[in-house]
Parts: sequence; structure tokens; C-alpha cells
Amino acid sequence: MSALLSPAELEERLRQLGAERYHDRHPFHALLHGGKLDRGQVQAWALNRYYYQSRIPLKDAALIARTEDPALRREWRQRLVDHDGDAPGGGGIARWLALTDGLGLERDYVVSAKGVLPATRFAVDAYVRFVRENSLLEAVASSLTELFAPTIIADRVAGMLANYDFIDARTLAYFNARLTQAPRDADFALDCVKREARTPEQQQAVLAALSFKCDVLWAQLDALYHAYVAPGHVPPGAFVPQR
Amino acid sequence: MSALLSPAELEERLRQLGAERYHDRHPFHALLHGGKLDRGQVQAWALNRYYYQSRIPLKDAALIARTEDPALRREWRQRLVDHDGDAPGGGGIARWLALTDGLGLERDYVVSAKGVLPATRFAVDAYVRFVRENSLLEAVASSLTELFAPTIIADRVAGMLANYDFIDARTLAYFNARLTQAPRDADFALDCVKREARTPEQQQAVLAALSFKCDVLWAQLDALYHAYVAPGHVPPGAFVPQR
Repeated sequence: MSALLSPAELEERLRQLGAERYHDRHPFHALLHGGKLDRGQVQAWALNRYYYQSRIPLKDAALIARTEDPALRREWRQRLVDHDGDAPGGGGIARWLALTDGLGLERDYVVSAKGVLPATRFAVDAYVRFVRENSLLEAVASSLTELFAPTIIADRVAGMLANYDFIDARTLAYFNARLTQAPRDADFALDCVKREARTPEQQQAVLAALSFKCDVLWAQLDALYHAYVAPGHVPPGAFVPQR
Repeated sequence: MSALLSPAELEERLRQLGAERYHDRHPFHALLHGGKLDRGQVQAWALNRYYYQSRIPLKDAALIARTEDPALRREWRQRLVDHDGDAPGGGGIARWLALTDGLGLERDYVVSAKGVLPATRFAVDAYVRFVRENSLLEAVASSLTELFAPTIIADRVAGMLANYDFIDARTLAYFNARLTQAPRDADFALDCVKREARTPEQQQAVLAALSFKCDVLWAQLDALYHAYVAPGHVPPGAFVPQR
């Protein structure tokens, strides 16, 4: 039986969990940001991460579809705007495609998701279903990895611009937008779970939801590392970089 | 647009797909059967595979729950009997626990699934949901990996008995039962899809379902290889073998 935490204690536990399990600690990111990957490996990362990006609005819409609170729906709707934009070519998904374009990947191939690692698909789909099927509080809490995003994004942009001649500021436009969007979203979600998690069980569920989401992110990088950093492990049917 | 295949052609395509994508080709199995793993690595395999075993009756019950055909329900019910037995201690799941017991893993820890790799969970859960949510024909077709099981099981039993002093015939009892169960199940499912897939679209869906299931199995071995064969990659919270 866990003790009831104060809202401040809950926040501290959430931040501690992020410090231990957020994917900024994954070795794939050290390689990516440190310029240790070749263009094909960066392509594999961008291709697989596109699948994640493409599922985020489905996840956010699933959350909106579950709440009777207009204020929460309005706030969460901004995430749809951020990802889908107001017109074709706008929004985060389009900005992600600018990155895959810049890396020389065929847009139709990227959008088809044909070359995506099955492990990416399983992890991302597990996240969408978690939001659909678990409690609304857990669904909100699973978004809290955004709390830890600004640091990794700043490191990524600086590291990739400095280390790869096939990357420029235009292709990394996605991340510039996220630097303001992620903290705004994270602050809202954090206030929400601190206010609504009023029993020890709810607080443990919130912590477990963030842990689950960290696993979703970590597993995607494990799969990328195994397939594209360790030699000879691309699974059948997945993207094979041209050397 | 794909051409309509004869039942024999469909079977040939299914067998070809298995020859290309079934996990007998995965390097983890070569290490496992060839005696190249240490006890901790074999423990990690058995622990993670237990999670798969434990979800199989849920998958089979989900399939039974979707068909109005008493003959199909009766036939498929045998799979529940095979896995769950008729009494405590009987059935395939209990035989799998005899293996994890023999490997020195705490039974409560195994059953809790606490140390299971998140990637295992994502892949296995994707399989259960596939059977729940896709067409009944695709659900049946996704079981067809059993067609390819007897060879790998025979190799596994012979290889593990010859190569590991911590393995004996008693701990491998699970596989002996599967040597008769798997072909019976596979023959039934193969007849079923050959009879019921009557349009090119249905036949392509059957092939895609088998491909999906091969991905589910392959991704589990990728995750094991990455975490426990490649050094230093156990994800946060997952089982750590004692050296």
C-alpha cells in the first residue's frame, strides 16, 4: 500500500522517474546527437519516428473523445492543431516530412510506413491503445514525457547541425516548434494530474502511466539500435539503407 | 491487384513466406540451440517467452468468442485445453513454468511478468489484439506459424539437451507435447484458410496475417538479442541475469 503524496511530492516522483527512464539516456541518442551515425542510420531513425508522429493525432483525438469536460477538450485540441496544421503542408507531421525529404527518403515510402520496424509499430500502437483503453487520468499522465523533451530537443538540434552535413536548420524545423509547444502541453498535463490524482491508487497509476510511456520511447530506440547500429540485424521486410 | 490463387497455390505462398520470415532463421535461435548462451541468457528467453505463453489462451478465447460456428469453436477449444490443462499443474503454461523452475527463476517473479522486456509485451499484446480486431479469417491465418514449429522444436530440444547442463528432458516437457499438438492445429487452420479465402483480397489478407505473426515472433527475438546478447542494453526495469 502506497502513501498519499502531496501534489509537490507526486511531481517530484514523476521527475525522478523521467530522470531514470526517459530516452535521453538511451545510447542511440548519444550516437545520433554526437554525429556517430551515417546518413542511412539517420534515415532509419527519421523513417521510424515518422510512424510515431503520424499516430500522435490519433492518440490525442482518442483522449479528447473520452472526456466530457469542454475545457480539457479545448486545451487538448491545440495538440491536433500543432500536429496537423490548419492547411496541407502545415503542422508537425508536415515538418517531419520536411526532415525525411531532406534526408533523401521518398515521401510515399515514408507515409506508407512499409519499411517501419515491426517493433516500432508494436510500441507505438501500444501507446495509442493505452490512451484509448486506460483511465482518462492515465491517458493524460502518459503524455508527461513532454516534461523532459526540451533538453533533449536542444541537444539534438545543436548536435545534428554541428555534426551532419546532410542536416540543416530547415530540415530540423519540427524541433523548433516543439521547443515552445512541449513545455506548454507538459505544464497543463502536469497541473491536471497533480490536481486529479487524489488517492494513492490514482497516484501510482499516474506514475505507472509515465513509466509505460518511457518504455514505449525506449523500446523504439532499442529496435533502431539493434537493427541499424549493431550490424546485420535488420528484420525481414524493414527499411535497408543504401550504402 | 493480385490474382486469385488456387488453394494449393495459396498454401505454397504461405509456406514460402514461412521459409523467408519464420523465426527459425533468427540468430538468437542459432545461439540458443547451439549452446552459445549462458544460463542467465536462457533464463531471459524463458522468462520473456512465458509472457507469450500466458497470453495464448486469451488469444484463442478471443477467436472462439468471435465465431458462430460450433465446429470451429469446438476445434479451437482444444487449444485452451492444451494450454490450461484440466486441473492445476496441467497444460502447456504449467509445463513452461517447469522450464522456468528448472532454470532457477522464482515462479512468482515469472508469473508477475515484472521483468519482461517492454518490447515483448508490445509484440505479444499486438498479437492478441490482432486476433480480437481483425477478421476471423485473418485471426485463424495468424496461427499458421504452427506449420513451421515442429522442425524448430526438434532442433531446440536436441540442441538444448546436448549443450546445456542446466537443462534436462523434464524441463523441456512443454516441447514434447507441442510436437503433436502443433501439426494437428496447423493442419486444421491451413484447411480452414484454404477453404475460406475465396477472393484475392481475402488471400492477400491471409498472407499478411501470417507475415504479421512472423513479425511478432521475430521482434521478440530481436528484443532478447539486443538486451541479453549484445552487452549493456537491458532496458530500465527489465530482468537482469545474475552473473
